[in-house]
Parts: sequence; structure tokens; C-alpha cells
Amino acid sequence: MSGAAAPGLASAVVVGTGLIGTSIALALRERGVRVGLADRDPAAARLAADIGAGTVVGADFADLGEPADLAVLAVPPAAAGPALLAAQAAGAARWYTDVASVKAAVLDQAAELGCDLSSFVPGHPLSGRERSGPAAARADLFLGRPWVICPGPQTAPEAVAAVAALVRCCQAQEVRLTATEHDRYVALVSHAPHVVAAAMAARLAGAAEPALMLSGQGIRDVTRIAAGDSRMWAQILAANAVPVADVLAAVSADLAAAAEALREAAGDGAGPGLKAVTGLLDEGTAGVTRIPGKHSKPRRDDMVVQVVIPDVPGELARLFRAAGEAGVNIEDIGIEHSPGLPVGVAELVVRPEAVARLTQALAASGWPVRR
Amino acid sequence: MSGAAAPGLASAVVVGTGLIGTSIALALRERGVRVGLADRDPAAARLAADIGAGTVVGADFADLGEPADLAVLAVPPAAAGPALLAAQAAGAARWYTDVASVKAAVLDQAAELGCDLSSFVPGHPLSGRERSGPAAARADLFLGRPWVICPGPQTAPEAVAAVAALVRCCQAQEVRLTATEHDRYVALVSHAPHVVAAAMAARLAGAAEPALMLSGQGIRDVTRIAAGDSRMWAQILAANAVPVADVLAAVSADLAAAAEALREAAGDGAGPGLKAVTGLLDEGTAGVTRIPGKHSKPRRDDMVVQVVIPDVPGELARLFRAAGEAGVNIEDIGIEHSPGLPVGVAELVVRPEAVARLTQALAASGWPVRR
Repeated sequence: MSGAAAPGLASAVVVGTGLIGTSIALALRERGVRVGLADRDPAAARLAADIGAGTVVGADFADLGEPADLAVLAVPPAAAGPALLAAQAAGAARWYTDVASVKAAVLDQAAELGCDLSSFVPGHPLSGRERSGPAAARADLFLGRPWVICPGPQTAPEAVAAVAALVRCCQAQEVRLTATEHDRYVALVSHAPHVVAAAMAARLAGAAEPALMLSGQGIRDVTRIAAGDSRMWAQILAANAVPVADVLAAVSADLAAAAEALREAAGDGAGPGLKAVTGLLDEGTAGVTRIPGKHSKPRRDDMVVQVVIPDVPGELARLFRAAGEAGVNIEDIGIEHSPGLPVGVAELVVRPEAVARLTQALAASGWPVRR
Repeated sequence: MSGAAAPGLASAVVVGTGLIGTSIALALRERGVRVGLADRDPAAARLAADIGAGTVVGADFADLGEPADLAVLAVPPAAAGPALLAAQAAGAARWYTDVASVKAAVLDQAAELGCDLSSFVPGHPLSGRERSGPAAARADLFLGRPWVICPGPQTAPEAVAAVAALVRCCQAQEVRLTATEHDRYVALVSHAPHVVAAAMAARLAGAAEPALMLSGQGIRDVTRIAAGDSRMWAQILAANAVPVADVLAAVSADLAAAAEALREAAGDGAGPGLKAVTGLLDEGTAGVTRIPGKHSKPRRDDMVVQVVIPDVPGELARLFRAAGEAGVNIEDIGIEHSPGLPVGVAELVVRPEAVARLTQALAASGWPVRR
């Protein structure tokens, strides 16, 4: 994964050494790019340098000696415009990009501040994880993930080429959109879902204890992302307020109509109210099937083989050894723990033609197998 | 897991051999209970019998010879009342229970039909899987899961004891609630979340293609359960209409207020609008933390060790063998596939004290490890 230099990118400076900035720096280092690291928290920059992300440079970029090929402004949305202005004023790099999760607001602010927009390509790598900070950084954070870049008519082609090279270095998938398209799309697939999850989860805050005991995987999945950092999310939402509000208003209206329809159905049995609810559920099913799978194409006929395993070291090794010796490739795996019991159920996802072979092999090794 | 007979349950008849009925029958068989199987689709009953769930009996229960100790009516909510009436008329069993996911409607219908309510304990095992039908049945489907039973003042104590024995046979966790409490709680943690997921997913049905490309794990999780059977879900919702409508109306109102607040914030920057949104997000976070974890107590300090693995047979075996030989217990595991790449990232969840040992062992075996 390392070694091959990035064409057109010999040096870069990363401003902001949080999770995203440090991960980008690590990926650039793996491609042999010289990387300078700047952060208003010197400890964060030093930590990033310590894990091999590059060399710390001062806030005036004087340590760089000469301008880097590319400056990556990996700071929160509200700070991106000022960071661009400061970096351009210091002549930190020839080309510039940012990583903020909203694009029109950043572009507007940069224009208002009088930044040079010909050398700036707004960007947004769609990745992240539940942890934050430089210590959680990974060079492969962007592997195969979409990375939106938003060049405008004013953008220099060389700036676009430099940012495209950055995306390739990070092994991400480049997606070119206008800033307005980007904001509308992330409102739909990221920002609004966060608020919807929070609104559902908020109903649990005051619920009776036994109700929570009945929670299954469904409510866990629907509300999982609501556990994020509220303050950070409120900032993101405010910076993309109108597109998010549009989606939320539509979801709110559909839910109000469903509530109304159900109250009607409670009165007249399976009347027109029920039909309206079925319509919404059908549209939901249609929407879900449009989301691309984890694999480029999920294989719907994959089968699950379940094996009960004691929760002790070495058991999974024995299991996988048996599968490997039978020549079976495990496509995916999950482990279900049963509360209070010292056993788990390993769910092995395999191709249909491998099920019999795997089942026989595991049974022969003494595993209690279920399909 | 098999062998020990269920105290007080020597025989049972399961009416309806779908996923739930057949899974119950399998669990009862493992405890040595004699099980009769009835289904209006004879092929479904035969299939259940073929996989060891019991013996097929006719719709008139005459094949039973004498009444079973317990009849389990594992039919859809709307069919539970009539099935109870028919089974009681035929004298199929001494005691009766059902498995419908709504309880007040079933109880009301049973009363209207003139069923004997002293021998009937409404029940609801909270389990299930994405597949259906007898072939997907598993004796361990209810392992550690909650199983609500709703005895009323009219219920015979022996009936309650028989159903409690059934719950123990299935290794589920008995939760006693009134029918009204049950319906209110499942509206909150199961039925309403389904509609909320559908309403969010419905926004994707007509979205631009590039928007879907930006989908991450968040939108996948929020909308996953919306992929269910719309017709079946509409029936469930209609049978629990008012409690579900109450939750949906509240979520709808919160989302409408959030949309309004965001439009205000777009006008006046970080004003009071933003504060209202932060409040909803905070309440959402508080709600999520109340959901019990997969483990009885999730251990928040568990660590993740990431290993890049080629997508070929035997690699996971080698990985787990190395972990097992180092004496490291893998608490949980996930595999991330990167679209279009022949490698995956195995994420091994281990206790903090095991991280160094695991990392060293894997590195010594030539694995590229990240933390």
C-alpha cells in the first residue's frame, strides 16, 4: 500500500490534526509525500507527528521553507474560511482544499473574507468513526469511501488535479458535485437522518423502565447515530440549515399523516387509513433498496450458518480453521452474545454452494451447527 | 441444552408452524415435550415435522388423543382470537397462549368471540429474524430475549404456570405486563420506530442517484428495518393504532419544530433556533443510553484491533489461531469490506489488557495490524 509516490503531489501541509486531518496525513506519508502538520493545539500536532503523520510546523507556516503543493484545511466548518484566509495570506501552499461536511456555507464565507477562490477546491471526505482525535487516525480511513470535491467555474484546473491526487492517495472514490448539490445530498443521507434518529431516541428518554427492556435490534439501529456529539452536530445542522429543514419537514408531514391515518384505522378497522400507512411503508422499502450495499453489489443469496460457541479463547480459531480446511470462504461474520450466558452464536455468511461443505466440516469437528 | 424435561409441561400443540411456532416447537422438543403441529397449510406443518419439531395433527386436533397441556397459537394477530375459539371448542389443550405482537386487540377479540379467558394467557416473545417460515426456525430463537406474558385477574394460576414453563423451555426472559402496558411499550420500542425508519427511507425513493452514493453507515442503520413486509407491518400497526399514533405524533412534532428552528437559525445564525435543535439532540443522546446493550452490561472500555485481511479461505482461521495461541479472547468481531477491493478489515474487539498481547501475536504472524 505504500511506496508509490502521488503524481503531482510532493508536499502537503495539513491544518488541523484531528481524526480526519491526521488520517489524511498518514495516507499521504504512505505515498511518500512530505507532510507538515499545524494545529492550534500544539499537543495534538505533536501527537500526530509522533504516530508518523509528518513534521510539526508553526502557525505562520515559516517552517515549510517553501509553499507546499497542497494545504488541507481539516478544521470544523465554521473555521474553514478563516483557516483558508490565513493559510493563503502566509503563502502556505499553491493549492487548497478543506474537509468540512457542508460546502456552500464554507464557500460563501471564503468569498466574503476575500480568499482566492481560484486555488481552492472545496472537499468533503465521507468517512469518520465514533472515536475522534489524532490517536484514532488511520491511513485507510477513506479506503473506498466517497470523497466529494466541488470545483467551480473559477477554480484553476491545476488545483482540481492536486485535490484529485489527494483523493487517489487516500484510495477514496472521487465524486464531483456543485456545493449546492453536495449540501442537498448530505442533508438527505446524513444530516436529516441524524435528527430523525434523535427525535425517535428522545421518546425513550422519559419512557418506563420495562419498555426499554423490550428493545430489540430495530430500535437500536434506528437510534444508534443519535449517540453523537450534540454540540458538533448542531453546528453542522445550522451550517446546512435549509436543506436539512426541507427533509425534516417532509418526514414530519409523513409521520403526522401516518399518525392521523392510524387514528382513523382504529375507528373504522382496515379502512383507507390503513392503505395510506401501507403506502408509506412501501415507499420506505423502495427507498432502502436504493442504498448501495457494503459490497459494490450485495449478494442477496448469501446464506447464514449459525454455530453456538463458548465464550473462551481459541474457539473461534478452531471454528475458522475447520472452515478454512474445508476450503470455505467466510464472506461476513457476526457474533451474537446472549445476555447472561457464557455462550455466543457465530453467524457465518457464506455462498449458497458452500453451505453443505461448511456444515459438514463443522459438524465433523464437533460444532453444534444450525442453519 | 436438551434432555431436562420441562416441569409441568409434558405435551403441547403448536397451531401455526411459521418461524415463531416452529422455533417454539423445536425448543419444546429439546426439553422432551411431546409436540403436535397444526397449520392450515399442510405443507408447512409437514416441513416443521420433518425438521424435528413434532408430529402433524389435523385441524380438529382429534389426532392428539387427549388434550395437550398447552396450546400455543402462533398465528398472525387478527387470527389469534378465532384460533383460540376453535382450539378451545375442540378441547385441544388445558391451557392456551398466543404469540401476537399486540395484546389488547387479541384479548378484546377473544372476549367478544366468547372464548374462555381463564385458561388463556396472552403472550409475546420478542424475537424474530429477517427470514420467515418453518425452515428458518431455530430452537434458540428466544434465548435470553424478553417474552411478555399478560395474565389478567380472570386467568387461572395453573395457566400462568404452564406458560411460564414454556418461556423457561425457550430460555427466554419472562416479563409480566398488562396488555395495555405491553401495547404502549412495543409501540414505543418497535412499532413506531418501524414507521419512523420508513418515513426517512421514503425520502430516498425519489432522490438523485449521486445522493445515494454518499450513503454511509448512519442512513443504513436508521432505515434498515424499513425493508420489512409492508402488508404484515400495516396489520400490526392497525392493531396497535392509538399507542403507535401517539408516538408518531410526538416525533412528528419534534421534527417539525426542529425544521422550524433550523430555518430560523439560517436567518439569524446561532440564535435560539440552534439551541432548540441542540436540546432535541441532547434528549436523543439521553434516550439512546437507556437502551440496554447486547451484553447485560456493555463494557465501554473494550478496544478494537484492526487487521487487514485478504478475502480468501483460511485467512480468518490463521488470524484466530494466532489470537487463540496468544490466549486472547475475542469479545466481538466485525468485518468491513471495501467496495471493489479484494481485502477486508477485521475489527477484533478485546479487553484493554489483551490489546498489546494480541497486537504482538498478530504482528509476529505477519499481520498488518492497526489500532
